[in-house]
Amino acid sequence: MLGRNIGWDWDTSVVSDYGLRYFDDYLPGASYDCGGFSVSEDEIVSFAKQFDPQPFHVDPGAAARGPFGGLIASGWHTAALVMRQLVDHYLPAEASLGSPGLDEMRWPHPVRPGDTLRVRATVAEARRSLSKPDRGIMKTVIEAVNQDGQTVMRATATNFLRVRPDSHD
Amino acid sequence: MLGRNIGWDWDTSVVSDYGLRYFDDYLPGASYDCGGFSVSEDEIVSFAKQFDPQPFHVDPGAAARGPFGGLIASGWHTAALVMRQLVDHYLPAEASLGSPGLDEMRWPHPVRPGDTLRVRATVAEARRSLSKPDRGIMKTVIEAVNQDGQTVMRATATNFLRVRPDSHD
Repeated sequence: MLGRNIGWDWDTSVVSDYGLRYFDDYLPGASYDCGGFSVSEDEIVSFAKQFDPQPFHVDPGAAARGPFGGLIASGWHTAALVMRQLVDHYLPAEASLGSPGLDEMRWPHPVRPGDTLRVRATVAEARRSLSKPDRGIMKTVIEAVNQDGQTVMRATATNFLRVRPDSHD
Repeated sequence: MLGRNIGWDWDTSVVSDYGLRYFDDYLPGASYDCGGFSVSEDEIVSFAKQFDPQPFHVDPGAAARGPFGGLIASGWHTAALVMRQLVDHYLPAEASLGSPGLDEMRWPHPVRPGDTLRVRATVAEARRSLSKPDRGIMKTVIEAVNQDGQTVMRATATNFLRVRPDSHD
């Protein structure tokens, strides 16, 4: 059962196995539990010093007086950590052909030091490519939720995936 | 002059100064040169091992036989490197109030080891908040272009910025 530590706000069928998958295996509506992770203040500051050194990401004192009342993770850090969960638990290592982009990326609630996030991926659309018969185009709704059930990131990603080798000429 | 090393595909007015800025200073249509950077194979592999360990990001041998014919940077790595340029050259250190998200993120062309990217930010929309008079809401078209003039990343970001202290009650 999912939701022992973090309650998802909806309970559809959840796929938790992870094996050798192809485009054909991702069915619209299926949800994948992509596991979770915690994020520390050191990690937040270290990532942000390199990539996003705004005061509320790198300076606890300034952050306390700033718009979020404390240090928060860069949205790019959250996105990168979420991506790791997708690579480990959702995207097929052999069949992934990259991503042309994503839409409606949102950070509705800040990520703070010590937060534990859980990631879920839900197949929103899956269609075979018309121009390239070896692949399909999949859209996925990605959600990351914190320990209090608040959504901290949401996006709709597009991925190209190889179809199962025996399913096309 | 911009475009000495990298030719932008359009030449509007480009703002290159960077000082103490507020929402009021960002005018729709203005473009900001956000500088450039190069990315090495070591950086690409190191970031991807942590956040996006797909074969075409971490394993030069597998990548050579893979869908891109060689190692490419994780799109999240490109995004994080682009963000650094925006923090250093575009977003106002004092007046930035974070971002609720972004739209239409695209990676139209892969980033490969040794590429030199240049980043440009163009103000697409800027309006005062109706509910919070201390701030404005800005949309920015972000573009990163490689040394051959190919766009490697494009997105439309939303940012909240403080208005100039003397411009509201």
